[in-house]
Amino acid sequence: MVVKINENYLKLKSSYLFVEVARREAEFIKANPDANIIKMGIGDVTKPLVPAVVDAFSEAVSEMGDAGTFKGYGPEQGYDFLAETIIENDYKKRGISFDLDEVFISDGAKCDTGNIQEIFGLTNKIAVTDPVYTVYVDTNVMAGRTGEMSGDGMYEGLTYLKCNAENDFIPELPSNPVDIIYLCYPNNPTGTALTKDQLKVFVDYAKENKAIILFDAAYEAFINEANVPHSIYEIEGAKEVAIEFKSFSKTAGFTGTRCAYTIVPKELMAYDSEGNAIEVNPLWNRRQTTKFNGVSYPVQKAAAATFSKEGKKQIQEIIDYYMENAKIIRESLCDLGLEVCGGVNSPYIWVKTPNNMDSWEFFDLLLNEANVVGTPGSGFGPSGEGYLRLTAFNTLENTTEAMDRISKLNI
Amino acid sequence: MVVKINENYLKLKSSYLFVEVARREAEFIKANPDANIIKMGIGDVTKPLVPAVVDAFSEAVSEMGDAGTFKGYGPEQGYDFLAETIIENDYKKRGISFDLDEVFISDGAKCDTGNIQEIFGLTNKIAVTDPVYTVYVDTNVMAGRTGEMSGDGMYEGLTYLKCNAENDFIPELPSNPVDIIYLCYPNNPTGTALTKDQLKVFVDYAKENKAIILFDAAYEAFINEANVPHSIYEIEGAKEVAIEFKSFSKTAGFTGTRCAYTIVPKELMAYDSEGNAIEVNPLWNRRQTTKFNGVSYPVQKAAAATFSKEGKKQIQEIIDYYMENAKIIRESLCDLGLEVCGGVNSPYIWVKTPNNMDSWEFFDLLLNEANVVGTPGSGFGPSGEGYLRLTAFNTLENTTEAMDRISKLNI
Repeated sequence: MVVKINENYLKLKSSYLFVEVARREAEFIKANPDANIIKMGIGDVTKPLVPAVVDAFSEAVSEMGDAGTFKGYGPEQGYDFLAETIIENDYKKRGISFDLDEVFISDGAKCDTGNIQEIFGLTNKIAVTDPVYTVYVDTNVMAGRTGEMSGDGMYEGLTYLKCNAENDFIPELPSNPVDIIYLCYPNNPTGTALTKDQLKVFVDYAKENKAIILFDAAYEAFINEANVPHSIYEIEGAKEVAIEFKSFSKTAGFTGTRCAYTIVPKELMAYDSEGNAIEVNPLWNRRQTTKFNGVSYPVQKAAAATFSKEGKKQIQEIIDYYMENAKIIRESLCDLGLEVCGGVNSPYIWVKTPNNMDSWEFFDLLLNEANVVGTPGSGFGPSGEGYLRLTAFNTLENTTEAMDRISKLNI
Repeated sequence: MVVKINENYLKLKSSYLFVEVARREAEFIKANPDANIIKMGIGDVTKPLVPAVVDAFSEAVSEMGDAGTFKGYGPEQGYDFLAETIIENDYKKRGISFDLDEVFISDGAKCDTGNIQEIFGLTNKIAVTDPVYTVYVDTNVMAGRTGEMSGDGMYEGLTYLKCNAENDFIPELPSNPVDIIYLCYPNNPTGTALTKDQLKVFVDYAKENKAIILFDAAYEAFINEANVPHSIYEIEGAKEVAIEFKSFSKTAGFTGTRCAYTIVPKELMAYDSEGNAIEVNPLWNRRQTTKFNGVSYPVQKAAAATFSKEGKKQIQEIIDYYMENAKIIRESLCDLGLEVCGGVNSPYIWVKTPNNMDSWEFFDLLLNEANVVGTPGSGFGPSGEGYLRLTAFNTLENTTEAMDRISKLNI
């Protein structure tokens, strides 16, 4: 007897994408300490928290220093004051209703989309889009739902739904049966959105096949077009087949503050090995109450303030600012003759590399010649090869400067 | 094909302990709205954050509202400024050294002790003390390392190390071979501590058997006696066999603020199925970078302030205050002729129920007749039956009042 590791971890290829991006960036900076690097790689916001949020955050910190208002352990699922305002603002206004115990506040959509697979069996067949936010894949590899990665860059046993220029980056339904489908729309990394009709195709598939959709709506706030759903629950019947993940990270600049939430409707069922329907909501509740202890109280007060009248107004201005950057990136690159998608309902712009470069070649070119950091598309899966992701989360000045520098390259 | 649940969840018995305690408490309050309930059940602190911590916390919130000092994503493992001060204060002063990348900052020891098992194989044999902090057990049940719970209240496949009056609540080594041993000292729930010699027995066992100790030191700050180790790494060779979990929750009143850390030494090895030694540190790093996104920046600044000169002094006063309560509880109950342990190096007091009552009977008696909420020992495992846990985390006034009320009961 010796203590054994979880050998599924050995199947994981290379390090987490952004770690490698950071490594190359650091190496470049070391060699070129005076270079003025513009970061458009990792999807991190740059604007500070808005005043309404800072005020609520500060006030709650003061409460924590006063015996009369101090808060110890809160509910693992989050405080009602935050769940209530989420339901009111993100759902009720769209004609969707939820009970408080269908909302689970957490410290990040990365955590929730990573942890959610724990409540499902290991024999489920998993589908992801390709390219994909790698957390969906890696967490399933770690849990043992895949085989090894094969030569084509895909893990055995996983179903990849290709998104490429041929299908306008809109995934088709899986050709083999699957049980769980991860969808992220507006999409990371391609920046594309699904219309209601396009999303309905997946909801209908899930209903028909007793499958579940794990819907990551972290970029919902960036939607501009009217026919793009802000929530999967805008599609009829989706409560029976979908879990939705939302985050304050990109919406309200919470990447360093940490708050998100997950909706697990009571209508949602999965099955035991005898085919009995089991409610999923209590399973997630058990997972969270056992392995999580709630979000910092001041952070939850800060998150609630994003829904105040002032908070909403201040945040909308920042989103508009980022989306102006997105427009600039999109149009500048189009002017250079590059193929581009995204940037309309999303802060991400997905660029085809010029001259058949591979993703890391184009990454290195932009880093070395324009001192601009993107994210290599190949890091998001095999269909991302030949693409690069740029983000609008920078200052207007840096965005313009980056586009100027790229324009001067011979590409 | 239908989507399948993780059926291991169905093996879990009843709800999480503290949910049931809260339910009975709420029911009592509903029936007796005027009762002045004194909560000595859940191990939650009552004193507010100290001024030094509030100041640092507030300042960091202000930084988040300023473009020049705003922080987006931080390192998933936590900021160096916090890891550095942890190493300096919690280890270097005791002659123990660590590199920065052996410290992993997180949002709670519950999360870390719950998640840590993910990096180990499912075939490992697990040992826990009995009674035990239920998170260690439940997370292994959920992961599938146990069978069903049998009639004696123990999960099949799990090794229980009994702690009862006969062995002075000090666990003996497992009689069958095990690979992973969870130890929490000072102990939750019994309040007992292990001396260096007693802990060395386990370290030596782990070295000899290529096992790993998961050492939960969440209550380290409450140690009063000189021969009780504050860290398992005070035992020679422990770096090769132990992971240590520490928390700011009980030490500095962070139960609602959320910060903790875990040490995974680089010397620590586990094995693949071919017997190759694999470093554990990179596995936990991969788990955290993939499924976690770091602790809120202002919370990390608040945590760092617990190590400032002022912070330490202010926090020590609160710990002394709680430990005075512990002494009062311990002595009052002894005076009543009850058998009591803990309360010397720990904020927990473990009381033998009088008159052969079972734990829930004694819980109900205290709730109904003295309006004092404890935690039934049976909720911590079969050897907890016939015991009740009381905590010192209340005001001096409430603690004294609770002891007065209990003294007037005919027990």
